[in-house]
Amino acid sequence: METPPGYRALDESSLPGYLAGIDAVIARLGGGPADWQVREVGDGNLNLVFIVTGPAGGVAVKQALPYVRLVGESWPLPLSRAFFEHEALTAQRAAAPAQTPGLFHYDHGMALTVMELLRPHVIMRKGLAAGVRYPRFAGDIACFMAHTLFGTSDLALPAAEKKRRMAVFCGNTALCRITEDLIFTDPYRVAELNRWTSPQLDGIAAEFRADTAAKAAVSELKGKFLTCAEAMIHGDLHTGSIMVTESDTRVIDPEFAFYGPMGFDVGAVIGNLLLAFFAQAGHETDSDRRDGYRTWILDQVREVWTRFEATFLELWRKHPTGDLYPAGLFADAAGQAELERIRAAYMARLFSDSVGFAAAKMIRRILGLAHVEELETIADPDLRAACETGALRLARDMLVNRGSYPTIGDVTAAAPEFLEKRN
Amino acid sequence: METPPGYRALDESSLPGYLAGIDAVIARLGGGPADWQVREVGDGNLNLVFIVTGPAGGVAVKQALPYVRLVGESWPLPLSRAFFEHEALTAQRAAAPAQTPGLFHYDHGMALTVMELLRPHVIMRKGLAAGVRYPRFAGDIACFMAHTLFGTSDLALPAAEKKRRMAVFCGNTALCRITEDLIFTDPYRVAELNRWTSPQLDGIAAEFRADTAAKAAVSELKGKFLTCAEAMIHGDLHTGSIMVTESDTRVIDPEFAFYGPMGFDVGAVIGNLLLAFFAQAGHETDSDRRDGYRTWILDQVREVWTRFEATFLELWRKHPTGDLYPAGLFADAAGQAELERIRAAYMARLFSDSVGFAAAKMIRRILGLAHVEELETIADPDLRAACETGALRLARDMLVNRGSYPTIGDVTAAAPEFLEKRN
Repeated sequence: METPPGYRALDESSLPGYLAGIDAVIARLGGGPADWQVREVGDGNLNLVFIVTGPAGGVAVKQALPYVRLVGESWPLPLSRAFFEHEALTAQRAAAPAQTPGLFHYDHGMALTVMELLRPHVIMRKGLAAGVRYPRFAGDIACFMAHTLFGTSDLALPAAEKKRRMAVFCGNTALCRITEDLIFTDPYRVAELNRWTSPQLDGIAAEFRADTAAKAAVSELKGKFLTCAEAMIHGDLHTGSIMVTESDTRVIDPEFAFYGPMGFDVGAVIGNLLLAFFAQAGHETDSDRRDGYRTWILDQVREVWTRFEATFLELWRKHPTGDLYPAGLFADAAGQAELERIRAAYMARLFSDSVGFAAAKMIRRILGLAHVEELETIADPDLRAACETGALRLARDMLVNRGSYPTIGDVTAAAPEFLEKRN
Repeated sequence: METPPGYRALDESSLPGYLAGIDAVIARLGGGPADWQVREVGDGNLNLVFIVTGPAGGVAVKQALPYVRLVGESWPLPLSRAFFEHEALTAQRAAAPAQTPGLFHYDHGMALTVMELLRPHVIMRKGLAAGVRYPRFAGDIACFMAHTLFGTSDLALPAAEKKRRMAVFCGNTALCRITEDLIFTDPYRVAELNRWTSPQLDGIAAEFRADTAAKAAVSELKGKFLTCAEAMIHGDLHTGSIMVTESDTRVIDPEFAFYGPMGFDVGAVIGNLLLAFFAQAGHETDSDRRDGYRTWILDQVREVWTRFEATFLELWRKHPTGDLYPAGLFADAAGQAELERIRAAYMARLFSDSVGFAAAKMIRRILGLAHVEELETIADPDLRAACETGALRLARDMLVNRGSYPTIGDVTAAAPEFLEKRN
């Protein structure tokens, strides 16, 4: 495979020599290359990820490969995704510093970023499978989304500045294409990359492929994804892109970032929490019942939206610095009251988008190419299929009947009903 | 005022020497510079426009000035608008060649374009004031809009190609800013640039500045203008940007082009036809009654939408080559029926957008900075104010009560009712 001049994929033995030329990294690690331990830990689908530790501290190194790691060299993917990821990380670090890893170094030619090593953080998805509670998660992720989405939108930025930023991300089409195909199209048609728990889900997978109402609904969402440039979105904000401890929450891997609909990020968090909710039955044992944990997950679904909405509205009321809804137009008492109605309608529309995107993301994780660990690790295929069926039934209803879910309470009330249908 | 190196504003005496270096122009004009007649005819608000004729033919030359011509050097405006205009003309010429002037030369450093000389065409707005009928207009402008809007949208283009084109126009923020301020904001607040027929319209102007429902509605439209990247729109498609004869229709001046909501163009045409409808009373005389012409104008309003919708749908059914609504997803009979429902809903939404943008454009032409010739030339201020009041009342209703105008027939039925209210 051809790669750009100057690019070479690093490995555990070549990485220390490369890092030895970067002052910020040397300062962070302490000692010299001979003192550094390197481990390749990439368990994602696309890239190389190294953890490097030295006498003084550690760093994480992420390098893009010119193909999809999960599939191999037969599926090329441009190295430019490292550039878009770095652009997004920089913007997120400015908007939500407490939830974004620190950045030490970016090498465009090598498609490589050196970041803060997050430890003892774990990928949140693993914690959700293990039944661990993270008391700061809901508030932190709500804070991250509110600040990054509001702060890059026309509510906060002058139009020219927003368009300048948006133009940069217009180039990230290869990664957008993955979303367009794998989320909004393939699960609803015969596609080579689709897979599901078979034969248990063969019937329901066929139902989705024949479900014209679901296709219409998911295509409407695809239309928003293609045309609705509301804010710089993370673009892949599932629980595998969130690293947590009991006291800290960080968002990583924004290589799918571009200017798109805000509800795509909010829906990713909600949809992945709901997948974890349905997966619990596959992990509970007589000595580890998960009823209380299921309730905790639904509490987080509600808290994520409620806190996101409150923080977003607080930012809007206090910092309306963008060109949309200029304060001067609504300065008097009647205008202020009207502006509150506008805000309420805006949040209701954003919530509706989020419900739709959450549903689309749940469906693609069960019927499409990329699955989720908390379902995949359920060894008994009948039990796994039962968990997946409940998630699919809820998601299909959320997708097609979005109007039946006007509030987050309607979502959290419905989820247990679909859980029972698996029995 | 500072200008880029290499740029100099041309005049009638310097233009022939400049054009003498361009083979395509020499071929078009025939003879040499000494044989060419030059006239500066720019009656627009922003640029220099020259007509050059020679023994064999003529060309039109448009050169941007580094400021707003209407206002002067105190209002700088980037020369880059010539670049965006040329980009848009090139795309429009590809999509709708019969309605776009031919291009002979583009000089980036001079911010200058040499185009086909359109003769004996007149600016349509002047024809509308004079009561002239253009039998090809409705079908031609419908064809132009359907081909340029469909052809640059996600219905026709692969997502990556659409984003590549969109990124170019993300830079046209100075001209978008003019629209954001002058159409969506200033008419609804105290603004130095606002003007209206005073004192006759002082009261209704104050009503608009206190009208929170109108402000909410126009701000929602501004939100679409800022975020909804549906297609490459002309961005200024009023009847002053359309040149006509009885047998030909051409669209000029797309310097406001960018990726925005399709309804902004459709609404511009409809709104400006409605302005001409309300202006007729100011031009009719005992020997030139305009009742029949008013009916003709409303017929054109209906025909523009009806033919646009038919042509757009025909393109969609025959050439669904974009990434939105992929044909394979709706291949069976149920899918085909669903796709027809999707198309109907899409056009209904686009029509609703168009009604709103039409209204916003009518209002700004009476209460904002830039007015229209067919109203400005009504010498009697009381008569002019009466015409303008009818237009404002209809536009306010279309803006705030868009749901009351589900079809174009509702618009054409309402217009005469508001005409009577002026008496």
